[in-house]
Amino acid sequence: MSLDAVLSRIDNDLDASTDRLFDLLRIPSISTDPAYDGDVKKAGEWLTKELSKLGFDATLRPTPGHPMVVAHGSDDGPHVLFYGHYDVQPVDPLDLWDRDPFDPVIEEQNGAKVIRARGASDDKGQLMTFIEACRAWKAETGKLPAKVTIFLEGEEESGSPSLVPFLEENAKELTAEVALICDTGLYGDGVPGIVTQLRGLLGEELTVTGPRIDLHSGMFGGVAMNPIRVLTKVLSNLHDEDGVIQVPGFYDGIPEISPELKAQWDGLGFNPETFLGPVGLSHPAGERGRTGLEMIWSRPTAEVNGIWGGYTGAGFKTVLPSKAHAKVSFRLVAGQDPHRLRENFREWVLAQMPPDCSVEFKPHGAAPAGMMDTGHPVFEKTREALSDEWPGEAAYIGCGGSIPVAGYFKTILGMDSVLAGFGKDDDAIHSPNEKYDVESFHRGIRSWARVLGKLAEG
Amino acid sequence: MSLDAVLSRIDNDLDASTDRLFDLLRIPSISTDPAYDGDVKKAGEWLTKELSKLGFDATLRPTPGHPMVVAHGSDDGPHVLFYGHYDVQPVDPLDLWDRDPFDPVIEEQNGAKVIRARGASDDKGQLMTFIEACRAWKAETGKLPAKVTIFLEGEEESGSPSLVPFLEENAKELTAEVALICDTGLYGDGVPGIVTQLRGLLGEELTVTGPRIDLHSGMFGGVAMNPIRVLTKVLSNLHDEDGVIQVPGFYDGIPEISPELKAQWDGLGFNPETFLGPVGLSHPAGERGRTGLEMIWSRPTAEVNGIWGGYTGAGFKTVLPSKAHAKVSFRLVAGQDPHRLRENFREWVLAQMPPDCSVEFKPHGAAPAGMMDTGHPVFEKTREALSDEWPGEAAYIGCGGSIPVAGYFKTILGMDSVLAGFGKDDDAIHSPNEKYDVESFHRGIRSWARVLGKLAEG
Repeated sequence: MSLDAVLSRIDNDLDASTDRLFDLLRIPSISTDPAYDGDVKKAGEWLTKELSKLGFDATLRPTPGHPMVVAHGSDDGPHVLFYGHYDVQPVDPLDLWDRDPFDPVIEEQNGAKVIRARGASDDKGQLMTFIEACRAWKAETGKLPAKVTIFLEGEEESGSPSLVPFLEENAKELTAEVALICDTGLYGDGVPGIVTQLRGLLGEELTVTGPRIDLHSGMFGGVAMNPIRVLTKVLSNLHDEDGVIQVPGFYDGIPEISPELKAQWDGLGFNPETFLGPVGLSHPAGERGRTGLEMIWSRPTAEVNGIWGGYTGAGFKTVLPSKAHAKVSFRLVAGQDPHRLRENFREWVLAQMPPDCSVEFKPHGAAPAGMMDTGHPVFEKTREALSDEWPGEAAYIGCGGSIPVAGYFKTILGMDSVLAGFGKDDDAIHSPNEKYDVESFHRGIRSWARVLGKLAEG
Repeated sequence: MSLDAVLSRIDNDLDASTDRLFDLLRIPSISTDPAYDGDVKKAGEWLTKELSKLGFDATLRPTPGHPMVVAHGSDDGPHVLFYGHYDVQPVDPLDLWDRDPFDPVIEEQNGAKVIRARGASDDKGQLMTFIEACRAWKAETGKLPAKVTIFLEGEEESGSPSLVPFLEENAKELTAEVALICDTGLYGDGVPGIVTQLRGLLGEELTVTGPRIDLHSGMFGGVAMNPIRVLTKVLSNLHDEDGVIQVPGFYDGIPEISPELKAQWDGLGFNPETFLGPVGLSHPAGERGRTGLEMIWSRPTAEVNGIWGGYTGAGFKTVLPSKAHAKVSFRLVAGQDPHRLRENFREWVLAQMPPDCSVEFKPHGAAPAGMMDTGHPVFEKTREALSDEWPGEAAYIGCGGSIPVAGYFKTILGMDSVLAGFGKDDDAIHSPNEKYDVESFHRGIRSWARVLGKLAEG
């Protein structure tokens, strides 16, 4: 049977697959920082070339931002669109990395082999599981068991500014029966999950201005308003004592999850202390009275992702600064309209400005939450394939993160997305010392090979 | 009469005096940043050499930090110790400077000639007024009209860590009848002031730690505690709605100023709107019910001088950071014990930590407030000399800033300090585009020449 041969080939070819992933990981494709624009393009070019070598009709498409990779296979069968992203998060604080983030290596961690590099898990390692699965099918059988289009983005970590126009302009070319997205994690050790519920994301940057120039706190302290005082007051008002977000209308329209789904989630045995323990925490910080999984999967959040103002270098400077800044994001759930909430947030902040202070806003993305219709048979085929590969049975789960592309696939291309990935909670994505388990990479390739095999069964 | 000849010489020599100041301003002696250690030393060496050329017995004295300049004149008459500091504040944000902060130039500003450079006003321009006054007396009469010791520090902008041990070790050598300190400003346009009341300064840096590592706000947002949330909550609690500082015991032991002094201050015609207007503000931000001069001169403050945490670069990063930091300072007044208040502040912050967060503190200086005994005749001689030079009559005033050295001169050397300087409110000290009026420099030199002349009158 050809699947067994494909899986054997994957096992035998793992070192070469890893070497190819390392080549991609060496390219510092940080999309949010213009200093790395050339490297983002280089990563797109590398993938285009690899896919061409595999027989795809692969092109690197320019956008006003970073380019998109689009690659069409010429095979028959059900048509799926595979999505991943080849850009990565910044690496600061660099001094907390144990090695160069762009010099990948295999290391031991807690008894397991891991691939260490920025992007190893998010999302270069994950997208390469699919490409390597395609490679194995091609090598073993000369073709793919399905009609595959591969679509890889270079702006996922910087708000995807070009994605919507690109999908709109290329809707016909990119529309398939269903999308496969590999940018999520396992539910637990050896237990895969298919995410059917995703939080949205609203990003805002605010700058509070007090005095026209930086002042000396000796000369002006006590009589001049300090914008850090104003900013910290506003941010401290984001949550009340019970963790409830205070922006007016924030919870309007949010449905409670169904009793069935709640029961299923309760059955997953999620333990906040077990989840938080590895990162040094133990107390769920969300709304009082909600379960840990609700806090992460079905309830919205407000987080300050960055704050800065005044003197932040070594030593001390008694400055009373002119400006103070913060980056704030909201994880959104079904029922919340990001654009309306952006307005509500801005009005709420503005109303808190004292007479001598002004505030400016800068938007950073606005993606609604997503909820999948699992009716298309590819969902159940994927669930079966994953259950065949992994020790645990695959489950339909929620996800705290935002994968806005799944929402756009639905609204612009009319496709649901099967969100399956092999990351682990301790992968440290977006953090120093990011890693991807070699097991995730290996079983990930085998998982997609099995999914492709199931698709051919019709 | 020799004073007139000295004053004429000062007028004729002004260009050369300015050139010498420019040489000193070109040395980037930023004491708080270890990257500039060599430049701080270079500035000390330059001054030692200049004072030697003027006939002083001048030496550069090593300390565990930056060196001290000590220079003894060999002349007779009342013994005064002149103090200034040759280090400067950092220059960030550099992009708000219109030119290189260490390339001094004379420019026009609002119709007046100004010397533009970091340190032009604070304190290189000011300390050079005294040195140039000595130079003119020497050149004209061959000697100084008083016994002068010059003591110049290189750590004033970084908390003066070596000052107390140095004063203790060299108490005999540095003790004079009275100190002259040139590090303050005019009271108003053409109106000099002698500061007899100074606020102290207590500096603290705090770091709140939540999760052990930076987290992804999608995966952990809502369930993991964000240290920025905790830090902003603590800082927002520093002041209540009336601007009253909430640290327990903060106001204990603070006397109200005497009705006489309050009447004198009310008579100065201070207008908060006029004072704040040039920096773009109009509303006094201190304790409700206090006058503007009380807020600056006789009431304590709490200011956040710097805050940082999470992602602060270009673009957006949905990080939930491990740590958040702030630099906080308190301006202190008579009756407040900085060491006790540091403990009170730390206990108050600690009590606000939620279960999953910890806080670390780093001290940055602790100097009590100062109040001068104006009984020594040098006070009144200086007031007369300043009144002779400037259009307005000199007044005894308060000062919002901290000049800790005046407190140490009192407690360690038993000397009161005559605090007279020629800075203006719009000098932008500690800010971009710092300047010193050419008039301040010129009349400043003439002022000290007059003071020295008065001292000789016995």
